Amino acid sequence: MRTITADDLTALATGATLLGTGGGGDPYIGLLMAQAAVAKHGPIPLMDLDDLPAEGLVMPAAMIGAPTVIVEKIPNGTEMRQAVRALERLLSEETVAVMSIEAGGLNSIIPLTLAAELGLPLVDADGIGRAFPEVQMTSFTIHGVPATPMSLVDDKGNTVTIETVDNLWTERFARTATVQMGGSALIAIYPMTTEVARKASIPGTIGLAMELGRIVEAPDLGGEERLRRLLARMRGARLFEGKVQDVLRRTTGGFARGTATLTGYGAHQGQLMRIEFQNENLMALRDGVPMAMVPDLISVLDQETLRPITTEALAYGQRVIVVASPCQPIWRTPRGLEIAGPRYFGYDFDYVPFPGGDAA
Amino acid sequence: MRTITADDLTALATGATLLGTGGGGDPYIGLLMAQAAVAKHGPIPLMDLDDLPAEGLVMPAAMIGAPTVIVEKIPNGTEMRQAVRALERLLSEETVAVMSIEAGGLNSIIPLTLAAELGLPLVDADGIGRAFPEVQMTSFTIHGVPATPMSLVDDKGNTVTIETVDNLWTERFARTATVQMGGSALIAIYPMTTEVARKASIPGTIGLAMELGRIVEAPDLGGEERLRRLLARMRGARLFEGKVQDVLRRTTGGFARGTATLTGYGAHQGQLMRIEFQNENLMALRDGVPMAMVPDLISVLDQETLRPITTEALAYGQRVIVVASPCQPIWRTPRGLEIAGPRYFGYDFDYVPFPGGDAA
Repeated sequence: MRTITADDLTALATGATLLGTGGGGDPYIGLLMAQAAVAKHGPIPLMDLDDLPAEGLVMPAAMIGAPTVIVEKIPNGTEMRQAVRALERLLSEETVAVMSIEAGGLNSIIPLTLAAELGLPLVDADGIGRAFPEVQMTSFTIHGVPATPMSLVDDKGNTVTIETVDNLWTERFARTATVQMGGSALIAIYPMTTEVARKASIPGTIGLAMELGRIVEAPDLGGEERLRRLLARMRGARLFEGKVQDVLRRTTGGFARGTATLTGYGAHQGQLMRIEFQNENLMALRDGVPMAMVPDLISVLDQETLRPITTEALAYGQRVIVVASPCQPIWRTPRGLEIAGPRYFGYDFDYVPFPGGDAA
Repeated sequence: MRTITADDLTALATGATLLGTGGGGDPYIGLLMAQAAVAKHGPIPLMDLDDLPAEGLVMPAAMIGAPTVIVEKIPNGTEMRQAVRALERLLSEETVAVMSIEAGGLNSIIPLTLAAELGLPLVDADGIGRAFPEVQMTSFTIHGVPATPMSLVDDKGNTVTIETVDNLWTERFARTATVQMGGSALIAIYPMTTEVARKASIPGTIGLAMELGRIVEAPDLGGEERLRRLLARMRGARLFEGKVQDVLRRTTGGFARGTATLTGYGAHQGQLMRIEFQNENLMALRDGVPMAMVPDLISVLDQETLRPITTEALAYGQRVIVVASPCQPIWRTPRGLEIAGPRYFGYDFDYVPFPGGDAA
């Protein structure tokens, strides 16, 4: 079995930020927590879905809340265990592996701390293949897996456990509880049998994030070569090069919503790109024409370092490259687009798949 | 053991409305539910605290929400059982008796349906001896009994189970979940051992409510005699007679807040009474001078029928008698006043006990 060592953690954080498409939360806090946990407990086994035992629970764990809050409100470190124990007690079953609900952003790396502490493997899989802002937006939902029982725990030690009639109601209750908890919380959600996990998860996404991170961080390669390799691995393309001219943000209902406006240079001199985000980048429009849209991936990279920039870190004057790549195939199904297509997010556009073919 | 028969139900509802001091919700829905349950399951045993078995859980059940919502949003009938089962599963213990959290208003009678359905006795006791608007305002809190685990269930079947670090946090999470559930929910709360129930509850309050209701409804007695007997039983006094001149209401944060202004006649000709309420009547001021204040009981009675009028039923032109009576002694302790004294509710008055001596 592969393991995640201390050396892999920054690559995972970087790659996950790329897959986070601007959202999913800045992984910095998760990285610090994971570094401490690996230093204390040793490398974390990374297990393929096929290698899961026949019995027991796979437990996705995550952080929920507005990214703008998450970067400032630090967990006390015991919340995830408390959330997992609440669900185990309720289900009278034990956890055999921990999983990321989303391979993008903070939530790719947050479960590592839990896995290390519990001495359990992390599954090389997730429920999205990127980041999404609402808890029902998962391959699990598409496969009919209930999000509940779900537990939220705050830094004070309060626990809220939710059992809802569908996963949209889970989102509603979880979001209001999160606001009450001060804007962020740790959660255990979608507890599932190993059999269900094998069917309903998107395989290989944690490994993919580490690969992408290693490309970004490759010390011996020039920027163009790293970008070429990144785009090849993601089957993506460069959309725009330009300067951040304006960022409009508002944190409402527990989300960081906003718009970034970029002015082009080089090949895009005289052009304007508008990026609409709701935690994640959701629409990229060049001179008003949609170039890529959710559920496909839109990422903003620093032009020099190729490091992905989260929506809360976007700032005037940054010189950036905007790239897009196809989402996981499940998001292009009618049910996938119903759950997380442009119209769900309030954009009056029919989904046009970003060229590049389906992701591997 | 005594039982509550179909004939006792209207008396209980009437007496509980009186103890509800304008709040606790109109018992009408609870009365209909209890009548149906007693017709189906037979009379409900009413058990003294001293007769509780040594083992098992006493389970307070209640309805939470703004009275203005509660009168219009009808439960589907299964919520309380679902809430109780959630806590039993969590605690791995069985319920042996059901209890009212508050003997005032709807919540005096709501648990009857649950008791009838589960085939369990109702305890002749409660946690307040009147009605209060927030879930932490109980004798249980004063005795250090945690309000959680607590479950809220809505008419759609969603369950939210809360475990908090203190009972004030319970109130906060319960209130926001209630708003998300559409403004009202059924709850199981303060699950406690029979031993704790014996120590921390206020005994005899359900029987008292029935007694008071029978006095109000006595067919052969004149109004003055019924009022005399009511006040004697409650150790209360008449504060004011007058006409409702104005009622100002606003439903904010899940509460029905407001002010009623009464113009006096008879002995109170030329005087003005202002009643401040937050679900319950909290302050009664005559010409600006406080005559009675929370936690003492302030009730508004119809002048003809002596039927208590809830704050959401107060309306222009009603001719009413305002009465006050002393609260349960536990509310006059420093901790009681801290939890539910005038300052907690935002009134800048030191508590002055309403004369009449401590309640029996």
